[in-house]
Amino acid sequence: MTGSSIDPFVDLYARRTSGMTASEVRALFAVASRPEVISLAGGMPFVQALPTEDVLGVVEKVIAERGSLALQYGGGLGQISLREKLAGLMAEEGVSGVDPEQICVTVGGSQALDILGKIFVNAGDEIVVEAPSYVGALSAFSAYEPAYVPIRMDDNGMVVEELETALLRGVRPKFVYTIPNFQNPAGVTLSLSRREKLVSLCREAGVPIVEDNPYGMLRFEGESLPTLKSLDPQNVIYIGSLSKVFAAGIRIGWVNADSGVLQRFLPAKEAADLCTSNLTQLVAEEYLAGDRWRPNLAALVDIYRSRRDACVRALEDTFPADSSWTHPAGGFYVWVTLPDHFDSQRMLAAAVERRVAYVPGTAFYPDGRGRDQLRLAFCFPPDNDVTEGIRRLADLLADESAIYRSLQP
Amino acid sequence: MTGSSIDPFVDLYARRTSGMTASEVRALFAVASRPEVISLAGGMPFVQALPTEDVLGVVEKVIAERGSLALQYGGGLGQISLREKLAGLMAEEGVSGVDPEQICVTVGGSQALDILGKIFVNAGDEIVVEAPSYVGALSAFSAYEPAYVPIRMDDNGMVVEELETALLRGVRPKFVYTIPNFQNPAGVTLSLSRREKLVSLCREAGVPIVEDNPYGMLRFEGESLPTLKSLDPQNVIYIGSLSKVFAAGIRIGWVNADSGVLQRFLPAKEAADLCTSNLTQLVAEEYLAGDRWRPNLAALVDIYRSRRDACVRALEDTFPADSSWTHPAGGFYVWVTLPDHFDSQRMLAAAVERRVAYVPGTAFYPDGRGRDQLRLAFCFPPDNDVTEGIRRLADLLADESAIYRSLQP
Repeated sequence: MTGSSIDPFVDLYARRTSGMTASEVRALFAVASRPEVISLAGGMPFVQALPTEDVLGVVEKVIAERGSLALQYGGGLGQISLREKLAGLMAEEGVSGVDPEQICVTVGGSQALDILGKIFVNAGDEIVVEAPSYVGALSAFSAYEPAYVPIRMDDNGMVVEELETALLRGVRPKFVYTIPNFQNPAGVTLSLSRREKLVSLCREAGVPIVEDNPYGMLRFEGESLPTLKSLDPQNVIYIGSLSKVFAAGIRIGWVNADSGVLQRFLPAKEAADLCTSNLTQLVAEEYLAGDRWRPNLAALVDIYRSRRDACVRALEDTFPADSSWTHPAGGFYVWVTLPDHFDSQRMLAAAVERRVAYVPGTAFYPDGRGRDQLRLAFCFPPDNDVTEGIRRLADLLADESAIYRSLQP
Repeated sequence: MTGSSIDPFVDLYARRTSGMTASEVRALFAVASRPEVISLAGGMPFVQALPTEDVLGVVEKVIAERGSLALQYGGGLGQISLREKLAGLMAEEGVSGVDPEQICVTVGGSQALDILGKIFVNAGDEIVVEAPSYVGALSAFSAYEPAYVPIRMDDNGMVVEELETALLRGVRPKFVYTIPNFQNPAGVTLSLSRREKLVSLCREAGVPIVEDNPYGMLRFEGESLPTLKSLDPQNVIYIGSLSKVFAAGIRIGWVNADSGVLQRFLPAKEAADLCTSNLTQLVAEEYLAGDRWRPNLAALVDIYRSRRDACVRALEDTFPADSSWTHPAGGFYVWVTLPDHFDSQRMLAAAVERRVAYVPGTAFYPDGRGRDQLRLAFCFPPDNDVTEGIRRLADLLADESAIYRSLQP
């Protein structure tokens, strides 16, 4: 944006805008787009792997056969024909018997987060989030000025015992927000025993769970675990997304919830943007109706697995012995914890100078933690670039450590 | 939606949801979709007039040439290549020299309304709206719990003198929201002298104007009037939309504002849905880059003009002498005022039974007014159906009047 004159409206903005700052992730998009920088920052799906002819066939069919529908306004819930396909996709992830009438299509999973914040959160209301949590969810919720209750993560996902302690302490959150599979940013997956404990705990406490599952179908190895939604259909509000299964650029996500929630969700969705694009909805429906999405997704999973392997191998080969990282069985991200003299936020400029980018850990906490942590996204760059990017980062860490040690008494 | 069990979350919803009800317009979408009903209710553009081959050519080009970009996440402001085209479109409406860097692409104009509400309105803040005003704007703003200051409309648009009185009385609104051209729902256009008065009044009072201009290019006759944005570039926040110029189903709108506003708008947009669909953005850009949009739009304007003529003629021929209506020089809507013993909300069920639908006037006021008024949308049904629909409505009015008179002493 150009212009830096004094804003004449500076006294007119709502209080909630004070929490809205240029996000670290967004600032990095600009940096990461420079070709010489290997970006391990943004979680961009590798859409280049989608065969152009598959997408071309789909859009041609939509315009030729249902052009007038594609170009028109639609209902707030979305096209029922797409919602049936989305219910089918949920069945593939073990959530059977979903009523397509209880699905509302959204502009990516992101809009579902915004609208759930809108319908549940009064300023000052408590909500539970994982620590670390998805930066986009924190941004969406923060517009409604919640009081965050962050719950620690370990290699098995949210430490549900700490949630239990918080509830016993009198915390009464409007909801618990979690990404159980290949979490963003931590890359970890909630264990089965914790899933069972989480749903029973929340059900007893009368606290809805918001289950965000964009990565569930990107599993590299091992058996899928049951979704929270399948463990407690009534108490779980489920958010799905086609951004990773098909394409982020169509902006199709959805929420599946009981009628009571949808009766509030739908007017809020309509107030936000009337309806989701019929064009992108029909493109999504047509793609899921064809026989190409399964092999295309399988090919993508192979690509991501290989990049994950390159990432973990490079970390093992090059990163300092006193650092640690998670071992994702799927998804996009590895979460690195450095010795605590590192400051990943301060170090970012030097990293970019060495032509590698990541997201500092602080972006993923509502309370300023995470300076010694960082997120690496292995989804987009080819294997060699992942390896080289991590080598560049390791060189930087070694140099910073040498300086640090030289300053010690 | 199915299921009517008691909602276990009923005590958890935010206060703002109490104002969110199933809108009258939405309820009517279901009714209007029954084929035997002539719908003069929803303001659906007549996208059937768009030649399929024009759209097909555009989407094929986008996928074949820029498929990876179309399917990927984009930046929050939108594609700069599209924003340049949108600045060009604004120049066609007399707003010259718009910096594309000061444009943010949104999911239709609707999302711009939601986000402006979000960044300006604290609960209880005053905002000025036209009375009647666009129901979608009222829904968007209401989520942020404003105190509405409705300003009366006449055949020359908002009665700016009443705004002046309100400001003198001490009203200090966060913004003034107006649709100067072919207003929704009133169909009237703000006169030149009132435009000049409005911008000087608001500039002096330090109150930004939100100018919503989805219909400006749908003028049937007469000369265009200058946009408010061109009269006061700094104090006017401009909202544009491609829903009527191209297609509603791509959900592309935009906001053009100074950097200060955009610095708040952008994080709020990203928090709402990360980014607008790259696919629909590139489709819009490619369509505007071609040579078909001008003749296609001219053809559409001819169709709408003819339907407006059919609408006004049928009203003159059939409606009671003590009713009145506006004479739109463009856009989608005629606004009818009936003798005040009519209740357009109560009468709607009977109208639908007679196979015609409209939107009751009450939908367009924040304060329960409008029972003796209704909105007729002439944009979608063919001329004959417009005529027949109004005849059915006139028959109903005649019958209702006869009953009313028979009950008088």
